[in-house]
Amino acid sequence: MEKLYFASDYMETAAPEIIEELGKLQGRKLTGYGSDVISASARDKIRAAAGVPEGEVYFLVGGTQTNAVVIDTMLRPYEGVIAADTGHVSVHEAGAIEYGGHKVLEIPSVEGKIRAEQIGKLAEAYWNDENHEHMVMPGMVYISQPTEYGTLYSLSELESISAVCRKWKLALYIDGARLAYGLSAEDNDATLADLARLTDVFYIGGTKCGALLGEAVVFSKKGRVPHFFTMVKQHGALLAKGWAAGLQFDTLFTGGLYEKLGRNGDEKADRIRRALDEKGYVQEIRNRTNQIFITLTGEKARELSEKVELGFWENKGDQVVMRIATSWATTDEETDRLIELL
Amino acid sequence: MEKLYFASDYMETAAPEIIEELGKLQGRKLTGYGSDVISASARDKIRAAAGVPEGEVYFLVGGTQTNAVVIDTMLRPYEGVIAADTGHVSVHEAGAIEYGGHKVLEIPSVEGKIRAEQIGKLAEAYWNDENHEHMVMPGMVYISQPTEYGTLYSLSELESISAVCRKWKLALYIDGARLAYGLSAEDNDATLADLARLTDVFYIGGTKCGALLGEAVVFSKKGRVPHFFTMVKQHGALLAKGWAAGLQFDTLFTGGLYEKLGRNGDEKADRIRRALDEKGYVQEIRNRTNQIFITLTGEKARELSEKVELGFWENKGDQVVMRIATSWATTDEETDRLIELL
Amino acid sequence: MEKLYFASDYMETAAPEIIEELGKLQGRKLTGYGSDVISASARDKIRAAAGVPEGEVYFLVGGTQTNAVVIDTMLRPYEGVIAADTGHVSVHEAGAIEYGGHKVLEIPSVEGKIRAEQIGKLAEAYWNDENHEHMVMPGMVYISQPTEYGTLYSLSELESISAVCRKWKLALYIDGARLAYGLSAEDNDATLADLARLTDVFYIGGTKCGALLGEAVVFSKKGRVPHFFTMVKQHGALLAKGWAAGLQFDTLFTGGLYEKLGRNGDEKADRIRRALDEKGYVQEIRNRTNQIFITLTGEKARELSEKVELGFWENKGDQVVMRIATSWATTDEETDRLIELL
Amino acid sequence: MEKLYFASDYMETAAPEIIEELGKLQGRKLTGYGSDVISASARDKIRAAAGVPEGEVYFLVGGTQTNAVVIDTMLRPYEGVIAADTGHVSVHEAGAIEYGGHKVLEIPSVEGKIRAEQIGKLAEAYWNDENHEHMVMPGMVYISQPTEYGTLYSLSELESISAVCRKWKLALYIDGARLAYGLSAEDNDATLADLARLTDVFYIGGTKCGALLGEAVVFSKKGRVPHFFTMVKQHGALLAKGWAAGLQFDTLFTGGLYEKLGRNGDEKADRIRRALDEKGYVQEIRNRTNQIFITLTGEKARELSEKVELGFWENKGDQVVMRIATSWATTDEETDRLIELL
Repeated sequence: MEKLYFASDYMETAAPEIIEELGKLQGRKLTGYGSDVISASARDKIRAAAGVPEGEVYFLVGGTQTNAVVIDTMLRPYEGVIAADTGHVSVHEAGAIEYGGHKVLEIPSVEGKIRAEQIGKLAEAYWNDENHEHMVMPGMVYISQPTEYGTLYSLSELESISAVCRKWKLALYIDGARLAYGLSAEDNDATLADLARLTDVFYIGGTKCGALLGEAVVFSKKGRVPHFFTMVKQHGALLAKGWAAGLQFDTLFTGGLYEKLGRNGDEKADRIRRALDEKGYVQEIRNRTNQIFITLTGEKARELSEKVELGFWENKGDQVVMRIATSWATTDEETDRLIELL
Repeated sequence: MEKLYFASDYMETAAPEIIEELGKLQGRKLTGYGSDVISASARDKIRAAAGVPEGEVYFLVGGTQTNAVVIDTMLRPYEGVIAADTGHVSVHEAGAIEYGGHKVLEIPSVEGKIRAEQIGKLAEAYWNDENHEHMVMPGMVYISQPTEYGTLYSLSELESISAVCRKWKLALYIDGARLAYGLSAEDNDATLADLARLTDVFYIGGTKCGALLGEAVVFSKKGRVPHFFTMVKQHGALLAKGWAAGLQFDTLFTGGLYEKLGRNGDEKADRIRRALDEKGYVQEIRNRTNQIFITLTGEKARELSEKVELGFWENKGDQVVMRIATSWATTDEETDRLIELL
Repeated sequence: MEKLYFASDYMETAAPEIIEELGKLQGRKLTGYGSDVISASARDKIRAAAGVPEGEVYFLVGGTQTNAVVIDTMLRPYEGVIAADTGHVSVHEAGAIEYGGHKVLEIPSVEGKIRAEQIGKLAEAYWNDENHEHMVMPGMVYISQPTEYGTLYSLSELESISAVCRKWKLALYIDGARLAYGLSAEDNDATLADLARLTDVFYIGGTKCGALLGEAVVFSKKGRVPHFFTMVKQHGALLAKGWAAGLQFDTLFTGGLYEKLGRNGDEKADRIRRALDEKGYVQEIRNRTNQIFITLTGEKARELSEKVELGFWENKGDQVVMRIATSWATTDEETDRLIELL
Repeated sequence: MEKLYFASDYMETAAPEIIEELGKLQGRKLTGYGSDVISASARDKIRAAAGVPEGEVYFLVGGTQTNAVVIDTMLRPYEGVIAADTGHVSVHEAGAIEYGGHKVLEIPSVEGKIRAEQIGKLAEAYWNDENHEHMVMPGMVYISQPTEYGTLYSLSELESISAVCRKWKLALYIDGARLAYGLSAEDNDATLADLARLTDVFYIGGTKCGALLGEAVVFSKKGRVPHFFTMVKQHGALLAKGWAAGLQFDTLFTGGLYEKLGRNGDEKADRIRRALDEKGYVQEIRNRTNQIFITLTGEKARELSEKVELGFWENKGDQVVMRIATSWATTDEETDRLIELL
């Protein structure tokens, strides 16, 4: 019997709707670097969905690239970015933020989340320190929605974080690599328009949410980063065939496809979570998005991994934490088979 | 009548063979970051085509990104890269090489080409200067095949450049953004295997040669840049869906597609060149690849541009140099219509 | 009555011996960039004192500069440096390490010190993580002797740290900004030769130990960092009048002056510590070097600061931690007056 | 007989007045990082001399450091600096500007000087290029007064350059490493106040003009670079004993010492120039400052160099260009001996 794969949410090609649109392009001429009509249409749809008619939208290729470009271009050279100690920029980007010259000011997190209060304390400590001119100035806050652990910030938490950022003049940036799964989660109460309203910039993830590639950066206000285009180029992040990324989002933001794809991942994950509960598995982190973390003995992990590919998360004493990731493409059949195996 | 487009070679979607292969992926699971079987197959085909069974192949996304990553990872921090003053890295990458901390040591070029003798002189001047420890050490030579002006280095020229690089311990790197049009040109005598043999690293361009995206970096020798993968990530250049790039090259290197696509661009350009000669246009640069440069009065340029989109190249006194770029997708009909218009 | 100053150890000009030697230079010609005979003599004396006849010695200007240059030139671009979360490179260098592109991998410290075991765990966790190629590779360990809190690593602790570094192929670097006060402390058992033997590189602090300026970087092995000179220049850290720094160390390493100056600071601090104990002050950190940390109420701190300038260290709830720093120049009279005031 | 030294202008210790002042500091307490009273006094004197009562003055350590810090902090990340192809930043700083991420946009020079017209053309070409967003934006102009070749910009030339900079919104920065010799030259007509009026920032060189170390950066307008202090620290350029640099300038700007020291170098050079003319030496560059360039056969150069240390400048076919540098400390006797030798 064929092996099952629940290791990550970027194992499948793109949503059929996208592949179909791509097929229709044959013979068509499109101008370069995002100046094409498809990208323009995608930008309009995103601006409408996010309620920022004056916002600026750019399409980059991948998550780490987007974080590196956004953070480096938003910060002044002497500023650092506040992030959870478990944040993608803190741990899993091979030092891309530091490569751009900026320190990640890590703060302790719980289930991937940080609190407004922690941000306020860090900022206050900095400005109250008589020697702060010898230190890295906090210039921005980076959070993920959902987080690395699949958890969500509630609207009220986001409002608190946004308020503390404005108080201390910190830009607020949300990494939405898996935003589709966040927007569609049963317990989510923060809309795209909320994110746009509460942040300075955020990105709508494509790669993990049904696109072949691409992430859509949304600046809520026009002109927030002058010459952003040139800096995208300088970072090697400018696509000549910009429409290749634009088309992903033009399709994803047609007919509610983006949230529909997210919902599929969340629903399959919810079914798996229920099954895990019934079977007595340990899920230390509770969330309603597409990632599930289970703690297993090494033996059990090895046994399972013969039949299903899971994601290794971390060693935890004698035990091991594995990640089950569903996606926009996970089928009922795969879900059934996994539940049976568990 | 519909407008004609000869402004660049990245205006069309990918070769139909690629789109077809992409369509077949639906439902298939592929592992991330280039560890998949399609990318593995593509690497094998490229190694075979380049005659470097032990070589290393990586797929990046675009040209500027590839140049920035390769140059930054090959050079030591105190080294610079020698390039033509008209080279892509010198002029059209928004400072991406300097962003990585390296100086581009520009030398004068003729029709986009530099000579082995110039490289030798620069290296000799550096090492003979008593104060060279206060200067940027030349560590690498960057050339393009074809160049920015569509011209080609002959095999003998490449051999001389390679020899001088080895003499002065300079790495040799070839930017092959338009390599398909170079390999297929009537006057080309340097094969892929020659490039692999004579350089330390080169890249096979996809974006401008029929791929949706992607460039294939080929290191002739194994282990040339330890931890290259991590540094690709650090530069924000690692694709989660690595197979999206791998598939391009797996297809392009099946059945001679890559060179076939190049040949189409070259043949159409050759026809246009002949027509331009007959009609008395000034082509200051003579080449046999897919780029043609014509010098026009401003008036004539404006007139033409109403019916056909050409690329602006540079102002030249009262006149303007425009670029006609054919591509893998240019049709006979488009070519006929352009010739008629001229 | 004149105000007392115990705010830092870099408030006085240089040791009289240095000023005297400087005065003798009038009319003398010295070659540039450290190629002079005085710097050569200083290097010889340091190599002898550290027991590394083949070592390399360079004179830089200040502490942050030295840390930035040494760390950036020792690490490969994808590597980070492990340091205490309270380390100078972590907190008080305005992001100079990140400016060079490297992440500071901070680990929790106790009284400014980190343990071999923590280093081993971090390295092991990195290499055991299946995704470590997406993370910053630990390449070096940075510790200070004495630490930011004036505490000392014992010889045995240093040996453990050195062993774990060699096991995991981590370079070991000691920041000796206040090394004179460390070498002369009552409870110190690690000699200069021990530091040279156990590390890959360390620096002997001048600025805070009686020099006008300057820090002496000692690489235990020859050729450890090829082209270090050029990279010093590239970092803007090369002194044209290199002998200005060389002379400091040529004098400091004549007749045991360096340790003598350190001893003065330590002895005065020891006297103050005893007085503080007698008077019931809270000294949370116990050390025998030239820094003393006392926890005071805000009111008491304000009262004291009218008569004596102390260093602000940190707020601690309602209370404030202040630093008393003695130095090579602290006199008995000043010490007496301070004790009286307390 | 003792060897003569005319190799450079940083071979001697500081002016006796400075050494004397340094001697007086014994026992005195001074606060750190330039917050001391001596630095404050020096800043006031410089502001007065330059006619910029609201200007900001900072003391850095050396020339390359100053260029790197000023250029990196004045430019936006996507901007480059225009400089003569023979400029110090272009050739002799080991890539310090590129290390900060900025391209040096080199333009051809004559005797070390560039012209307003060239700057205007470069800026115009950039802004008129349809693809300029893919290129490095010119953000600043760097010139030296005197230049690397000892030549001077006239007041009228500086005014033209300043005007073209303002037209194209380019900051203007003057490197005054040898400014004393420029201000005091027979043919100089640009005062310190002119420099302050015409530039955004310039520096008054100490190291080569009689100081032990130090360069004084003068921003004509307050607040030109927010958080400059923090960025100085971040670049490793902040002196803990800031007064060590401040004292140099406090002394140099007392009683006209700075210009007096410059005049000594210029007068000795003028005498040597006349002697060289009489003896028929080839001086391809004519200037009135402290640097003289003579073209010699290799044999003659070797012969001379046995008796007098000259600076190697460059090979020129079979011949060699050597530099004779006088300084603030050059005596009549040394000058006589050199003239005799020639």
